[in-house]
Formats: sequence, structure tokens, C-alpha cells
Amino acid sequence: MSAPAQDPAVEDITQKTKEVYLDDAGKPITKNAYKKLQKDKEKAERKAATAAKIAAEKAEREANQVDCSKDRYGKLPMNQSQTRTETKYEDINTINASREGETVTVRVRVQTSRATGGKMCFFVFRQGVSTIQGIITADDETISKQMVKYCVGISPESIVLVEAKIVKPVEEVKSCTISCAELAIEKIHVVSEVNVRLAFSLDDATRPESSYEEDAQLSRVNLDTRLNNRVLDLRTTTNHAIFRLQSAVCLLFREFLTERGFMEIHTPKLIGAASEGGSNVFKVNYFKTNAFLAQSPQLYKQMCIAADFGKVFEIAPVFRAEDSNTHRHMTEFMGLDMEMAFNEHYHEVLEVLEELFVYILGNLKTRYAKEIEIIKKQYEFEDFEFLPKTLRLPFKEGVKMLNEAGVQVGEFEDLSTANEKFLGKLVKEKYHTDFYVLDKFPLAIRPFYTMPDPENPGYSNSYDFFLRGEEILSGAQRIHDAEFLTERANAHEIDLSTIQPYIDAFKIGAPPHAGGGIGLERVVMLFLGLGNIRRSSLFPRDPKRLEP
Amino acid sequence: MSAPAQDPAVEDITQKTKEVYLDDAGKPITKNAYKKLQKDKEKAERKAATAAKIAAEKAEREANQVDCSKDRYGKLPMNQSQTRTETKYEDINTINASREGETVTVRVRVQTSRATGGKMCFFVFRQGVSTIQGIITADDETISKQMVKYCVGISPESIVLVEAKIVKPVEEVKSCTISCAELAIEKIHVVSEVNVRLAFSLDDATRPESSYEEDAQLSRVNLDTRLNNRVLDLRTTTNHAIFRLQSAVCLLFREFLTERGFMEIHTPKLIGAASEGGSNVFKVNYFKTNAFLAQSPQLYKQMCIAADFGKVFEIAPVFRAEDSNTHRHMTEFMGLDMEMAFNEHYHEVLEVLEELFVYILGNLKTRYAKEIEIIKKQYEFEDFEFLPKTLRLPFKEGVKMLNEAGVQVGEFEDLSTANEKFLGKLVKEKYHTDFYVLDKFPLAIRPFYTMPDPENPGYSNSYDFFLRGEEILSGAQRIHDAEFLTERANAHEIDLSTIQPYIDAFKIGAPPHAGGGIGLERVVMLFLGLGNIRRSSLFPRDPKRLEP
Repeated sequence: MSAPAQDPAVEDITQKTKEVYLDDAGKPITKNAYKKLQKDKEKAERKAATAAKIAAEKAEREANQVDCSKDRYGKLPMNQSQTRTETKYEDINTINASREGETVTVRVRVQTSRATGGKMCFFVFRQGVSTIQGIITADDETISKQMVKYCVGISPESIVLVEAKIVKPVEEVKSCTISCAELAIEKIHVVSEVNVRLAFSLDDATRPESSYEEDAQLSRVNLDTRLNNRVLDLRTTTNHAIFRLQSAVCLLFREFLTERGFMEIHTPKLIGAASEGGSNVFKVNYFKTNAFLAQSPQLYKQMCIAADFGKVFEIAPVFRAEDSNTHRHMTEFMGLDMEMAFNEHYHEVLEVLEELFVYILGNLKTRYAKEIEIIKKQYEFEDFEFLPKTLRLPFKEGVKMLNEAGVQVGEFEDLSTANEKFLGKLVKEKYHTDFYVLDKFPLAIRPFYTMPDPENPGYSNSYDFFLRGEEILSGAQRIHDAEFLTERANAHEIDLSTIQPYIDAFKIGAPPHAGGGIGLERVVMLFLGLGNIRRSSLFPRDPKRLEP
Repeated sequence: MSAPAQDPAVEDITQKTKEVYLDDAGKPITKNAYKKLQKDKEKAERKAATAAKIAAEKAEREANQVDCSKDRYGKLPMNQSQTRTETKYEDINTINASREGETVTVRVRVQTSRATGGKMCFFVFRQGVSTIQGIITADDETISKQMVKYCVGISPESIVLVEAKIVKPVEEVKSCTISCAELAIEKIHVVSEVNVRLAFSLDDATRPESSYEEDAQLSRVNLDTRLNNRVLDLRTTTNHAIFRLQSAVCLLFREFLTERGFMEIHTPKLIGAASEGGSNVFKVNYFKTNAFLAQSPQLYKQMCIAADFGKVFEIAPVFRAEDSNTHRHMTEFMGLDMEMAFNEHYHEVLEVLEELFVYILGNLKTRYAKEIEIIKKQYEFEDFEFLPKTLRLPFKEGVKMLNEAGVQVGEFEDLSTANEKFLGKLVKEKYHTDFYVLDKFPLAIRPFYTMPDPENPGYSNSYDFFLRGEEILSGAQRIHDAEFLTERANAHEIDLSTIQPYIDAFKIGAPPHAGGGIGLERVVMLFLGLGNIRRSSLFPRDPKRLEP
């Protein structure tokens, strides 16, 4: 179809209409005046278009040319391992004043940023437990105002890749762990961007507990909020230090025992029957039957002794279906277990355990002094005191000390948490140690496999270790005689069918042995005075918490 | 009441009876003959009594005096830590010909005993993986025949405390690991007695697999019998060596990673939701709700990376509710996991993992040569070959090799176990290595969090490690971008609510990272050619086994 000819009807209407000329206000004017008006308008439009064009060209020029920093900032595409330039990424801990003038590449978190005027921006950059100041200043030569503006807009906790010159600051940067050097930013690119509102700021999460007493206005991040946002919370320098220390306890535990010929074992956590009397055992759907989660590696580590492994240790989760909602109970925690055949007397094993603790505590203090200082800033605590030769008190003596201090405790009665703590206080006053051992507990309050004391009826060859007045290790000589073990299991009304493989292990001969189990998180909590076991567990589990 | 007087009725009867004298055969004889007979009888009785007395005295003398060994043998009372003599108990490995003439105290298992004549008994004593010969010979001076008899009666697997003189044997003792010295027993006491019939002898349990081909009459202990009597089975020198090696793999894993600044973490095994798509997840009754057992520490170790821990590792049990009854699946096994933030390319991580394996394999061969030799005696296997710089093949190349060898495999298809093994064979032939890496797996056959390859559509930045043609590590670059991660989880039809804390961790910024998970028991099984994963697990768990 061809284009239609001009509509005749429209022609008609035009012809019929009388020519009337109006100015812009709608007032009739002459045809000439009207024509002049039209010309002026066209001229103005042309002028405006030219001006717009010039402005656009200027803007484009500015964008292209005036932003001298164009390639120096921006968001990187998602890293999919596209390239490998082998650029050296520096650890910020290697940066100090002696390296002044060097250009380095670092990848850091933006902890905070602060703009001053429109031309400068200060950053606190973070890498693990270390922080360093970053500065960017617009100079219209290499660093544009746009680049500074972009920097100001980078949200906290974003990860940035920074190329910067090391600069000696005019005065010490007190707000950062690296105070003698700062970074004059030359390039900055966002590696990972944060687009959500953070549940709390890292500054708030790292504030000393004491500061709330001084300033009630300060925003306090409570424990539940922390745990609900645990990944963010774990980024604080305090938490990094806490978990470095937790990691260290395991390392030192293994270091000491491996050196002494202990062998690491891995025993099953899924077990066929609820052993050890087992009301506090989690039940698992296991194909067409049920399994249970091991409450401790106790029976299996002893079976390894019956298998002649001699000296064994295990670091593994233990599970307790106990509905305890306290500062020191979790439903899942890390057990540091050891078991050892001895020659003549269970004190051979007790001595190894005491030396183990002196080793762990001593090396934490020396090798991890920096981490301890960091933690102390937030959770103030007294330095941990302990003796080179561990104080070992008979249980009887502990009861006597309590009685003499006016606390009524029965001779064969277990110690309540409050009494444990009070006894810890008495021991600290008298012996100046935060670490001691109670030996020879009453038989009745210990598990069925505990060896009775041959000399003192009603007592047993068993012991607990205490840090700052709270129990962190429980152990004993175990019964290695199948017949006597059966007798004791019966006395405790334990269903023998649930522990048959365990009993059978001793029927084929076993050496006398003893051992103990340590609660990792308790050690860390008490050594550091954290006050709540959830603070020393990465992702704590209690009757009410299964997430994150 | 006083004692009754003699009964008058009895007196009456006696008086009424007429006196008749009979000899022993009942024949009547005269009174005098009868009297003589009585006298002779009394005399004979006196003589017999004297003889009996003499015999009794002699027996007593023998018991008291003639058993010159009385205090040199017997069963000790149950050790309850009654005393501590500080006697030195020797490790039998310290015993050799140079110590000839020394008297030592050792505590050992009786592996076997053999009486010769009535005067001698030979023992094989065992301590861990070492054995030594013990001999006792009656000499009627210090060693009595009774003592030798007692020795013969000590049942195998009993634990004995032996005092003995080190003797140089006439010829090498080939049946023991210590062949240049033996123990001339001077005292022997049973510490732990075995009164039950053993399910099998340790000799039978330690016999080389090849020996059955040579002698079909030999009693073979099958795997199920071994596992049902695992404590006894674990006592074999082979098993001691296997678990020393298992322990070593963990030690070397940690040694390597700790040296490189990795930090140990402990992530929860009880989780709130069945994540990772999760059909193979065990369900746990958790108070009034349900929990699940973690299938891997995957999500949590990545959350630690999002928390800026940088380089982390974990050694912990992982649980798989998979009804797989194969030689290489268990429902619970030990995961050796690592995760690491990288700067530019996931090959930075892959290189660390490759070097880690070269470190582990190399150190196993050098530091544990003795254990490997012991295991090889029972389970013969070819020495493990590997290259100093690990062979890394693209998955595509693996498929090509299979295709060229006549095996039809699709380009994006996962490898079956059989194909994996066959590829391992092809690789071994071509490159002479039992250890290699396949890189760049098809995206579709990897978990949702795997980073796609930016250049080759359909592939991903992921890798598997193989030992003797079987997979022992699976790893990848992970998606660190929350938005893209959500997109991929949706594509895999994963219920986002089950992984919300995981996704959230990336919304607050995370560095690019990669990692991998190693199956400990598989490494041990394949390195040692054990043929069944249950042989490298202390107390294996599979769909049909929850005990012992």
C-alpha cells in the first residue's frame, strides 16, 4: 500500500478557517509579527540545542577526560577465576613505616569510612585481627572527586582490592592496630559488595563490656543478636582471637600427647544402643531401626586400650540431650579425650594430665599473648594463675575447706556449681592458683566403670580438674576386670545388653588404665573469663538453638 | 537342763546278747583269736595313719619347700592402684642382644605358648606391633616344674608381668619381630586373665591373604567375624600398623596446613534443616523438634570464610544416610576438610591441595615405612607411585582417554566407579602415577554452590583427586556472590529456607574461595590397597552395622 495522499477533508477545514495569528500568550497579532515570533523561537531553540549539545559534550568530556581516575575504581566482575596475574597480595601486618613509599596491593574489608569535605575519605581497613588506616584525597590529577565520592559510597564490610602507597602518618593512628603506617589509596575496586543493612556495626560488636557502665547510651549488641548473626559477629577482632585460642588448645593438646607416644583415634558417634545409663541420649532414625548419638567416646576409647593401643586421644564432638539452659551447657560440644594404660597406679595418668594442662596453659600465655590481650580489651578478666606443679587435693579435703568456711556439704555428696565456684575461691585465696585437681571422689556419684579406692570405702580412684572454680575435666581409673565391671553395671541398674561389646572387650584381657575427658569450650571460656560457653563455640547448640 | 544319764534300755539289750566272735569274713572264731585280730587291725590302721601323715607332711613339704618358685608366679589381685613401686616397665623394642644378661620387667600379652616335655615352655609375647620370645625351663632350683606347668596353662591373650633375663638366642628367632634377643623368664604373674574362648587366634587373623591360595586348609577369618570381634581383631600387628597410619594421615594433614597458616575449626554436626538438597540426611529427635546430622562441614566452613578466617580446616565425622552397601561407603566417616580464600584464581587452592597430598604421601612412605611393611605382609599391594608435581588433567581429557580406549562416556556425564578405575589404569600406564587430579568437571553433576567455568559453558571450576583410580577428594571454587548463589540454588530446586543462614553469610560480603573434602578412610584404604573401607575404620558403620 502506498502512502495516502493528503486528506482532502483536512484541506477543506483549513480553507474554511479564517487565518488568525496569536502570540504565545494567545493574543492576536499580525501575520508578520507572528512570523517574526516564529523565527525568534526557532533561533532560541537552536541556541538551546547548541547549549545542550555543548553541555552534553562537556559532560562527556568530563566523564571521559576530566575523570582522570576512571580506571582506578569501580566494582569488579564476580571472580570466576578468569585470570591469574600473579600480583602479590600483601598481608597488612607486613606494612610498617620502614616500607614508606612502597606501593602495595592489599585485599581488605572496609570496617568504617568517613568523608571530610568533598575531597577526602578516611577508611579503617581490616584483615583478620589487624586494622590499618586508608586515605584518599582528590587532587584533580590522578584522584578525581568522583573517585572520592565512590569511596564514600562503599558500604561497611564490603571487600575491596586496594593499590596504595605506604605513608608515614603525621601522628600515630590510635584507632588501628597498625599505627605507624597508613595507606594512601591509588586504586580501589570492590571485590564483594554489601547491599544489606548490617544487624550491627563491628565497632559496636567489639566495644569493651566496661564501656556500657561509663556510657549507657551506647548500643549494646546482646548475645542472642550476635548468635543470630554469627558470621558478622565472628568478624570482630575479639572473636578472631577467641577462635585462634580455641584452635591453639587443640594444637597444644595434640602436641603434648603426640610427643609422649599417644595415638589419635576416631570412634563412632552413631551407636547401636543408648549406653552409659543413657537418658540424655539423642535418638537417630537409622534406616529401619534407631541409632543413638555417642555421649562421649568413653566406651570406645577404653575398647582401644583393650585392643592394646596403649595411649590414645580423640578430639571429636559429643552430644548431650540434656535440657540444661545454663551458661556452661551445650547440646553439642568438643570433647578432648585421652585414655592410657598404666603400670602400677592411676596417678601415673593423673600426672600426665596435670602436666598436659601446665603445658597448655603455659603455652597459651606465651605463644598467644597477643590474642589474649585483644580479648581482654573486650572481656576484661584477671590473668590466669597456675602453679608449675599442679595442686592436687583429696575430695575429702575440699569438703573440709567448704565446711570450715561455713558451707554445709555432706561427706559423700556431689558439689553443686555454686559450691564448686566457692571452693575455687577458697583454693585461690589459700594456694594462689586458678587451676587445681580434686582427687578421690565418692564412688556413688561417679559412673559405673569407675574403680573403687582400695583403701577408703565409699571413695574411688577418680578426679576432676577445675579452672577458675569450674569443672573442665572429669576422669578416673576404669574397671578393667569384666566380672567386676558387670557387677558394678548391675549395681547401677544398667541394661547389660546395651554395653555387651564393651564388657566383652575386657573378657579378652585388658591392662589397668585411666583417662579423662576435657570440654574444649569450657577451657576457652574459663581461661578467658568469657562468662558464657556460647562465646567459645563457633556455632553453639543448646536446647533452643540449632541455627545458624 | 543337765546331760542325760546313760540310757538303761541300751544296757539291758547288751546284757541279754550272747557273746559270739566272728572274723572279717563273718566266720565264728575264739575270743582269743578275735582279740589278736583286733590288735593286728589296730596296728595296721596305726601304720596306715603314720604313712598318710608322712605323705601329707611330704606333700606339705613339697608345697612349702620343694616349690622353690612359689613367689615367682601366679595371678595378681585386680589392680586398684594399691601400691606404687616405681618399677621400670620396659618397652620390648629396647631389648636387643647388646643388653644380654640384664634383668628386665615387661608387661606383655601372651600371643601363643608351647610346652616341650614337662620342663620347658616357649612363649610369643606381644606388645603393640612387636613380638619377642620368652622361655622358661624348670631347673629345680629357682624354677619349679609347677611353675612351668602354670605357664603352660596361661591362656592366649592374657596379660602377664614378666621379670626375665635378656638372653642371646642360639639362632635368630624368626617367628618374632625381635629376633636377636629372647627373655629367660624368672618371674611371671597374670595381670589380666582370659577365661573365654577366643573367636579366632591372632595368628589366624594376621595370616597373609596369599597363604590361603597356597593352603586351602588354613582357617580364614572373614571380615564380618573380624568386625563382630573388633577389639580382638584390632590387636593384630597389621591393624596396629593400619591405625597408626590412619593417625599419621591426620597428623600430616594438620602439620602441612598449620605450617601454612590454616586455623582449625569445629563446626556443628547437629543442624536445624536438611541442607544441600538433603535426601541422604539422618534425622535426630531434638527435644520437641527435629535436627539433622551434617552431611559435611561444607556450608559452615564457607561461613567461616565469610567471617574472614581466611584459611580453615576441620577433621570431623560426617554422616550419610545412604543405603549403599559397597566396599567404599560408610554411613559415618572422617572428613578432612579445608577451605581457603584465594586472591585471583582457584588454582591457588588446587595447588595447596596437590602439595598437601604430595606431602602426606611422601611422609607416609618415609616416616611410616615400618608400618607399611607390616601391612604389606598381610595385604599385599604394589608400592604407591606418585609424581613430585601432581598430574592435573582436564575432565574433558579424561573422557577423551576413555573414549579412545573404547569406553563410551558422554562429554558431560559423570564417571561411574568402574570408569574411574579404568581411567586410573590408563593414567597409570601413560603417566606412571597412582595419584592424579581431574579438573573442570561438568557443572550439572556438581553441587549448586559450584562456580561455573567462565570460559567453557557446561563446565565448572571443580576438581576430584584420585588414588589408585578411586576418588578421595572432591572440591571446587564456591560461589561467593549471594545473588548468584540464590539463582543456582533455585536452579537445583533447593528449598532456600533450609540454607538461609548460609546465603545470608554471603550478603555481607565474602572473598572468592575454594576448598575440598577428603575421606580419611578412603585415603588409608587406597594407599594400602586394603580393598574394603571397613578395614581402615576402627568401628565401621554401614546400613547394616551399628556394633560394636
